[in-house]
Amino acid sequence: MSLHDEMIEMGDRAVRAARELAGLTTRKKNSILEAMAEEMDSRRAEIHEENEKDLAAGKEAGLSAALLDRLELTDARIDAMIKGLRDVAVLKDPVGTKITRWMRPNGLEIVKTRVPIGVIAIIYESRPNVTADATALCFKTSNAVILRGGREAIHSNRVIADILQAGGARKGLPDHSIQLVTTTDRDAVRELVQMVGRVDLAIPRGGEGLINAVSTMARVPVIKHYKGICHTYIDDSAELEMAVQVAENAKCQRPGVCNAMETLLVHADIASTFLPQFAQRMQARGVELRGDEATRQVLPDIAAATDADWEAEYLDLILAIRVVGHVDEAIDHINTYGSHHSDAIVSETEAHQKRFTQRVDSATVYVNASTRFTDGAEFGMGAEIGISTDKLHARGPMGLEELTTYKFVVAGDGQIRE
Amino acid sequence: MSLHDEMIEMGDRAVRAARELAGLTTRKKNSILEAMAEEMDSRRAEIHEENEKDLAAGKEAGLSAALLDRLELTDARIDAMIKGLRDVAVLKDPVGTKITRWMRPNGLEIVKTRVPIGVIAIIYESRPNVTADATALCFKTSNAVILRGGREAIHSNRVIADILQAGGARKGLPDHSIQLVTTTDRDAVRELVQMVGRVDLAIPRGGEGLINAVSTMARVPVIKHYKGICHTYIDDSAELEMAVQVAENAKCQRPGVCNAMETLLVHADIASTFLPQFAQRMQARGVELRGDEATRQVLPDIAAATDADWEAEYLDLILAIRVVGHVDEAIDHINTYGSHHSDAIVSETEAHQKRFTQRVDSATVYVNASTRFTDGAEFGMGAEIGISTDKLHARGPMGLEELTTYKFVVAGDGQIRE
Repeated sequence: MSLHDEMIEMGDRAVRAARELAGLTTRKKNSILEAMAEEMDSRRAEIHEENEKDLAAGKEAGLSAALLDRLELTDARIDAMIKGLRDVAVLKDPVGTKITRWMRPNGLEIVKTRVPIGVIAIIYESRPNVTADATALCFKTSNAVILRGGREAIHSNRVIADILQAGGARKGLPDHSIQLVTTTDRDAVRELVQMVGRVDLAIPRGGEGLINAVSTMARVPVIKHYKGICHTYIDDSAELEMAVQVAENAKCQRPGVCNAMETLLVHADIASTFLPQFAQRMQARGVELRGDEATRQVLPDIAAATDADWEAEYLDLILAIRVVGHVDEAIDHINTYGSHHSDAIVSETEAHQKRFTQRVDSATVYVNASTRFTDGAEFGMGAEIGISTDKLHARGPMGLEELTTYKFVVAGDGQIRE
Repeated sequence: MSLHDEMIEMGDRAVRAARELAGLTTRKKNSILEAMAEEMDSRRAEIHEENEKDLAAGKEAGLSAALLDRLELTDARIDAMIKGLRDVAVLKDPVGTKITRWMRPNGLEIVKTRVPIGVIAIIYESRPNVTADATALCFKTSNAVILRGGREAIHSNRVIADILQAGGARKGLPDHSIQLVTTTDRDAVRELVQMVGRVDLAIPRGGEGLINAVSTMARVPVIKHYKGICHTYIDDSAELEMAVQVAENAKCQRPGVCNAMETLLVHADIASTFLPQFAQRMQARGVELRGDEATRQVLPDIAAATDADWEAEYLDLILAIRVVGHVDEAIDHINTYGSHHSDAIVSETEAHQKRFTQRVDSATVYVNASTRFTDGAEFGMGAEIGISTDKLHARGPMGLEELTTYKFVVAGDGQIRE
């Protein structure tokens, strides 16, 4: 069978599974998640064995230490996958929720009802734990899932998918609810994201290269979890100590993640008081600063920032700094160079706060708080499948609700249109 | 300047306009809509003059009578455009609405706030009134719009766009909020729907060919308003007279539209009582019936339906009929051959109603009512930009709310992440 036909068949199976999944009760789904967790707990040795094969092949192929680390399934990571399955079981099931309900004058009752999306394709890279984490969220929302992980994690992904299927099957998981693309043929991704009518949504999880490749090839809708070029703007009216702490936290608390600050914008009137104090704190934390000309007038020892710095996602202890003359200049900078992820203003002026939150075109905008809070758990949404930098359907932390859509259920007693 | 650069520049202008639009109050937007309506009323002669040019060119080019009819702007159609602008002014403005609001234990306030999408590209065919209708909806939701109409309506579209701009400008419409692509170069559409970062959403309005072309070329998100292959399923427990009336209405009340019924499914146990009565009614209405074998056992005089009939959107007084053995068979048929638009069950059995509404994967599912109600006005949503057959972001009638997205506005007093 050709790859194309194979993928089409996989899609057809997923569509059939999705129809069965739509009928499962929450109780049943939760018992299936628990069975998956138990199955995984009982097959740890097998996971280690398969994971070893990937690690050995990876070493032989000369993968970097960082990649090998992502690939490794330690006992702690297996524990985390098991806990993840149980955590998702506890989350509120959005499927079947009545979003709104209204009556029409002719007696028709219209109920906007939350329903599964259908078939979701997850395309990811080297972390095999995504196999369990993404499946749990898609399954809890009654979606069928087609998983396509990195070729370097194929043995690990296979055993995890098998565990989820086998564990789930014991409690009535519909066949083909969880399918893993086992061919490592790169064309499989293209086939997958072009199966209009069989795949309802593709979510790429990984680096910029993967996301761009998937978006370019896709014919089905894609929700992107893209990079974070996040800003903090220190307004002239900012409380100095709050500004220093919020900016320090945004930069340093965990610099390698998408909601960490990459560029700091400072109002000219506060630059000479704020910047020296802040620079001292940054020096203590080992952060390299790069500034525009006005910044370097206050901090002459730091390197000059170039245009490339405004577009950089360092994910590291590096920070670009620019002095601006007005809140509007900060807004313009963010809208021009940012990635529409998370941006903050520190200000005591209500008009500036409002202008900033209204005009900065980002998924999350903060007033007097660190950008590091953009996160499903920190938002109180429970687990997230990612942080969407897209504008349609899901924006910002993407939890269970965002893995659903809606339909209108209209009930009458014989109404006809005149 | 190359077409590519021209379109990029147009996109940049739209992005800047969108930022201004995001700051307009509802009152201001409504006064702009009123000014547009007044401007249009005062420039009727000009509209007729330009429309005449399109009609003359169309006749010369040998356009069909149907196309010429769509192209023509009669006084009644100009009245309808003017009324449309005023009707949209009256609708509730969704922008700025707080969708949900919650506090976190650390004191952060999170407000999920409705905001404009940004820049919307509308790609349409021969009806020039779309220029005004689509603009009104996009503008009311503070979106910048880039319009690309059919080449055969270029003079009409130009004058309408000019009227909207000029009228709006008198009341402070930001520059470039409404831009019309005036080149008739076909490549402009490709450029338009590939401007990631400048166009946030493309909505094609027209026939299957246009929608397919746009979807295939697009790199930006597309919401499709696709065809309607709508079904009515008559369950064994249906009330006979209600079933006849609902099915008749779904087929005959306006057969040329997307929410009209194209296929009727009938439970085997009720076929011999329902079908003769219904066929008589269809004969009186001049509807041609085509049935499967079981149907033709009851109605031997009708033509045989082939597989092509199950996939046909007749938009005409033709109806395909199939007898099924069970509600599940009806559901399967609809999910296999339908277009996920609008489908109805006529049944007195609650379990069947529930199974149908849960499992039929369509934007709108009806119990004991005609499919003809799928419509923004009939739903009480006011004007609609179309009826989405997609699953993400907007499904079913797409009104003002569906032309918005959301952002999270998070307010604190110095919160940092531990």
